[in-house]
Amino acid sequence: MHAQVFDGPGRAEWREVPLPVPVDDRDAIVRVDATTICGTDLHILAGDVPEVAAGRILGHEAVGTIVEAGPATGWSVGDRVLVSCISGCGRCRFCREGRYGQCLGGGGWILGHLVDGTQAEFVRVPFADTSLHAIPEEVSDEAALMLSDITPTAFEVGVLNGRVRPGDTVVVVGTGPIGLAAIMTAQLYSPAHVVAVDVAASRLDAAKRFGADVLVDARRGPEAVADTVAGLTDGLGADVVFEAVGTPATFEACTRPVRPGGHVANIGVHGAAATLHLESLWIKDITITTGLVDTFSTPRLMTMVAAGQLDTARFVTHHFGLHEMAGAYDVFSRAGDTGALKVVLTRD
Amino acid sequence: MHAQVFDGPGRAEWREVPLPVPVDDRDAIVRVDATTICGTDLHILAGDVPEVAAGRILGHEAVGTIVEAGPATGWSVGDRVLVSCISGCGRCRFCREGRYGQCLGGGGWILGHLVDGTQAEFVRVPFADTSLHAIPEEVSDEAALMLSDITPTAFEVGVLNGRVRPGDTVVVVGTGPIGLAAIMTAQLYSPAHVVAVDVAASRLDAAKRFGADVLVDARRGPEAVADTVAGLTDGLGADVVFEAVGTPATFEACTRPVRPGGHVANIGVHGAAATLHLESLWIKDITITTGLVDTFSTPRLMTMVAAGQLDTARFVTHHFGLHEMAGAYDVFSRAGDTGALKVVLTRD
Amino acid sequence: MHAQVFDGPGRAEWREVPLPVPVDDRDAIVRVDATTICGTDLHILAGDVPEVAAGRILGHEAVGTIVEAGPATGWSVGDRVLVSCISGCGRCRFCREGRYGQCLGGGGWILGHLVDGTQAEFVRVPFADTSLHAIPEEVSDEAALMLSDITPTAFEVGVLNGRVRPGDTVVVVGTGPIGLAAIMTAQLYSPAHVVAVDVAASRLDAAKRFGADVLVDARRGPEAVADTVAGLTDGLGADVVFEAVGTPATFEACTRPVRPGGHVANIGVHGAAATLHLESLWIKDITITTGLVDTFSTPRLMTMVAAGQLDTARFVTHHFGLHEMAGAYDVFSRAGDTGALKVVLTRD
Amino acid sequence: MHAQVFDGPGRAEWREVPLPVPVDDRDAIVRVDATTICGTDLHILAGDVPEVAAGRILGHEAVGTIVEAGPATGWSVGDRVLVSCISGCGRCRFCREGRYGQCLGGGGWILGHLVDGTQAEFVRVPFADTSLHAIPEEVSDEAALMLSDITPTAFEVGVLNGRVRPGDTVVVVGTGPIGLAAIMTAQLYSPAHVVAVDVAASRLDAAKRFGADVLVDARRGPEAVADTVAGLTDGLGADVVFEAVGTPATFEACTRPVRPGGHVANIGVHGAAATLHLESLWIKDITITTGLVDTFSTPRLMTMVAAGQLDTARFVTHHFGLHEMAGAYDVFSRAGDTGALKVVLTRD
Repeated sequence: MHAQVFDGPGRAEWREVPLPVPVDDRDAIVRVDATTICGTDLHILAGDVPEVAAGRILGHEAVGTIVEAGPATGWSVGDRVLVSCISGCGRCRFCREGRYGQCLGGGGWILGHLVDGTQAEFVRVPFADTSLHAIPEEVSDEAALMLSDITPTAFEVGVLNGRVRPGDTVVVVGTGPIGLAAIMTAQLYSPAHVVAVDVAASRLDAAKRFGADVLVDARRGPEAVADTVAGLTDGLGADVVFEAVGTPATFEACTRPVRPGGHVANIGVHGAAATLHLESLWIKDITITTGLVDTFSTPRLMTMVAAGQLDTARFVTHHFGLHEMAGAYDVFSRAGDTGALKVVLTRD
Repeated sequence: MHAQVFDGPGRAEWREVPLPVPVDDRDAIVRVDATTICGTDLHILAGDVPEVAAGRILGHEAVGTIVEAGPATGWSVGDRVLVSCISGCGRCRFCREGRYGQCLGGGGWILGHLVDGTQAEFVRVPFADTSLHAIPEEVSDEAALMLSDITPTAFEVGVLNGRVRPGDTVVVVGTGPIGLAAIMTAQLYSPAHVVAVDVAASRLDAAKRFGADVLVDARRGPEAVADTVAGLTDGLGADVVFEAVGTPATFEACTRPVRPGGHVANIGVHGAAATLHLESLWIKDITITTGLVDTFSTPRLMTMVAAGQLDTARFVTHHFGLHEMAGAYDVFSRAGDTGALKVVLTRD
Repeated sequence: MHAQVFDGPGRAEWREVPLPVPVDDRDAIVRVDATTICGTDLHILAGDVPEVAAGRILGHEAVGTIVEAGPATGWSVGDRVLVSCISGCGRCRFCREGRYGQCLGGGGWILGHLVDGTQAEFVRVPFADTSLHAIPEEVSDEAALMLSDITPTAFEVGVLNGRVRPGDTVVVVGTGPIGLAAIMTAQLYSPAHVVAVDVAASRLDAAKRFGADVLVDARRGPEAVADTVAGLTDGLGADVVFEAVGTPATFEACTRPVRPGGHVANIGVHGAAATLHLESLWIKDITITTGLVDTFSTPRLMTMVAAGQLDTARFVTHHFGLHEMAGAYDVFSRAGDTGALKVVLTRD
Repeated sequence: MHAQVFDGPGRAEWREVPLPVPVDDRDAIVRVDATTICGTDLHILAGDVPEVAAGRILGHEAVGTIVEAGPATGWSVGDRVLVSCISGCGRCRFCREGRYGQCLGGGGWILGHLVDGTQAEFVRVPFADTSLHAIPEEVSDEAALMLSDITPTAFEVGVLNGRVRPGDTVVVVGTGPIGLAAIMTAQLYSPAHVVAVDVAASRLDAAKRFGADVLVDARRGPEAVADTVAGLTDGLGADVVFEAVGTPATFEACTRPVRPGGHVANIGVHGAAATLHLESLWIKDITITTGLVDTFSTPRLMTMVAAGQLDTARFVTHHFGLHEMAGAYDVFSRAGDTGALKVVLTRD
């Protein structure tokens, strides 16, 4: 088969590799019907994730069909499944709490990271019994694919950790795909205002389409954000702030407009330490949360997609065949120019 | 009457001042039967709290007797009351949530800060209807006095914010009076282990007496704390970590031993920003909380003192008469030498 | 002035009575600009609420203007306010928890019950500082009036007690005004399905307009409800069921379709005991809640009305002048014929 | 081997049966080192649990040693394990929430009920990977055995469902083994008072030994309970009430002394409907919970037993060899005379 193989920083190639084979009774082999590219894949290519070894097949998101089902998987050949970005052994203390992202039994984020991933014609899925999700007929491949990572990440690490409530004022710093997913899923809890903050006008446009009602150009500085929020909240501040970028500056920008008693939910992936202004925050009753997605919410999100409550397919801006992997990476990596949110690659 | 008057950084004096008079229907005048000194008072004296004006009477903790009760206070002359460090207007959105420390109506921490305080023979208590607490007969002045600030602070900002649960491993960084109160009240939730961390052997001894079962000399470094905790938790880390010092270094030391999914509850008062190691914490599902005490738990804590569940009087190491204020400050400010935890000054 | 005076079971009259006068520093006298009639008023008239004395002015809902503000109220003459059905002393343990409906200090549901109420040209409001709410300019009298009782009741006792979550299947048994308010406010949490159950076709029509997507004629029996819910939930049952009628039969009908782990939130006012089928429910992990509204959510609901998130004015089906009280009672009491949901009476 | 075989109502016998054999890759065969008898076993014998077929081996509690480990169990021959009364498939929506008692995949309470149980020399344990628990060396067989059912049942269905908090007044109606376990585990949350209610003086004595500080003879009637609680709580009522008997009368007795805002946690197994006095409870803000144990807390409870926080072995009043099954049933079934709480049968 063919797959997108990482050959060390700066290099990856769609080339022929051996077919995956099961190595455990809980493994399933899944034919990839649709996959996508994540910002994290670009980080791997940039060399920012050193634990990814050369030779590794990339990708941690897919919709596919089971072609081989290990005896302990509970799945059957032909089942249509969602491959989650997170695998869970289902037995360790964290899996038992639904905290699959912190799995101690060999799971967590492993696909396209510690084991071969989904940017391939076929993928071996470990712990298939507890890491794959059935897809209802009425949900399209594209809509389901957005539940591999982006939607549960924004919902769990952003909306649920941040405890959004009806009537809240929510600020989203960074409106790339994850920020947009946070805007979309925050609306499940009916905030009064969603304030989107970004440096790119095109992204603020997208934020508006996804449901933000107030837009702030981040280039105007953190003061402008704070002033806008103050104007919406009688000077009190935001109930919830999402960090969806992953830099020290954006994190610090999030701790400023939050109201006493409010929440800052970090969703961004960080490579450097940030400054925490405890000299002003110690007295302010704030809660800061961090987290890797656990995907415990995936079945519930799938229900909502099936019921027409969430239109996840709208993230998809570009379509490719699997063998057009190089072109898809090119378009996705130049999102500023191409306007790409999520690209989808489907079986030819 | 006499009172301890702040005369600017480095200077305070027990001297004659006018008797306080009510200025609002919700004011009560309380005769101070017992008061104490807080670490915050030393910070004020050091000039670290610039909003305290010269001429201000210090102190935000007292047990006393009402000598004048405004018509809207609901209290009667002769009532024995606890003066809380926090005043609440009872009407603003935060008071309505029990978040009195963030009162928007003129309350919060005001005594000995923005209005005259309790280190005096008499004190005017604003919002007396919603800021004083009745003391059951079976609770001594000394035991009650520890509920003005130290016990609810440790319980609310530490134990409740940190969500201590039965069987947890809890780490307390800093075992001064607040850290000790955190150790004491954490035990209400039956942790399996309480690990005390401090630089002073005498404080670690106190921690042991208050219920810590594992002691770590902080001079051995954050590695030693992490290793000790790892040994107790199969390498997983602490469920809850309390910061009870208030420096960047101690805060950073708290974010290291916490387990995935764990809590860091900041109790310390900080004067400088700290470094938040998001490059390792973003993925770790941790929750960091900050907070000023709200004292919503004071009635419940009073019940527990009355029922013999909490021995708060044990914080008291030294006794003085009110007129011995200077001596009391001297002993308290040299706690390292004197072994002072809390000093009590009583009406002569 | 004129007011609607209760003269014992079956008798009430709009007649001249003395103007109310303040009896406490916390009292306000409010000119009634708009009031309404509640199902509870009909129960009083029917003699079902024996603690209402003859001579009592009825009504516990109003929007008005302050004409006299006691010195401890914090309000000013001319302020436009919402009179809440619940008064809170603001000092007792329950008020301090935001549980005003259970006030131990003389509050709770008192207006039109234990003290004179709002179906009058003027009303004395006790504990005015903690029992009245400011109304933003952009909120109409009619929209605000629906926040006196019906909307917070449905939201707190139904939606919040029942813990509705995104993607849930919610069943509402009884779609009178309270049931409709539950349907409306449940949508703030984005359930996948809202199943309305009633005996009256006109009420099921209303339920559909308020957002229910599945309608069940209650005359088809509890089996039909259970079957419909089973069909929506893979046989599992409803996540949340609201009882919004107040009879033994409707309560029992609620405990049948609930799923393991689900919630039954009782909103209805009951006059008789019901049967709890513990022989089947003991093993089912269900939670049953009861409650009188506390109105802690009123400010948040007001924010949402102001932000255009909740269209509460849509409950209003009929308009009258205050002096048309008799006609308004007639129309409201014959809701089956008149289609009345809420009637509004405004100052002439 | 020998096992206790149910031969229909009123009849059971310790006799020779075939050795169990694995039927699934997730099965383990466990040699029973210690087992016990549950009140539920007596109900089965009485014919109250009709789904138990004649020929079924009884028992759902054991400590043992793995003698055969299916390839998908993750266990090894020789591992010392706790057999939980609840089996969980680990894959269904309820197992993923830790709600194993409601397992939809073939688990739940099955041992000694729908499949052969633990009152035998060997037992086949389905879903062994997610249904057995490792036992730390420092925990004795006897202490561990009390975690099969009784301790997690009382803790989860009583203490956690009832949300016991420090300073609470807790009432326990029924002080058999489950009620005593509720008394013991409630103390992990430091209630101020635990009021034990029972008809038997010997059981009230036991309640006192397990930590109840107030005893009420149930024969004095529900008034006496309510009066005692009122005396402890300024007339307010109990924060939490546990039903640990399973009759309509005892359930009704539980809804009477609960305070506004309080919890009634049903732990008892009921065979008949009870009366729910909604005519007085609808207004009282109470929460009633029911539940089958899920055993999600078993690892945490094991930690606490290992740490010396919980002395579960104290439930054991009588010891037998496995082959003395008949005698053990006799002693346990005459608990009123024999004073039996839990009997332990160990491998000869």
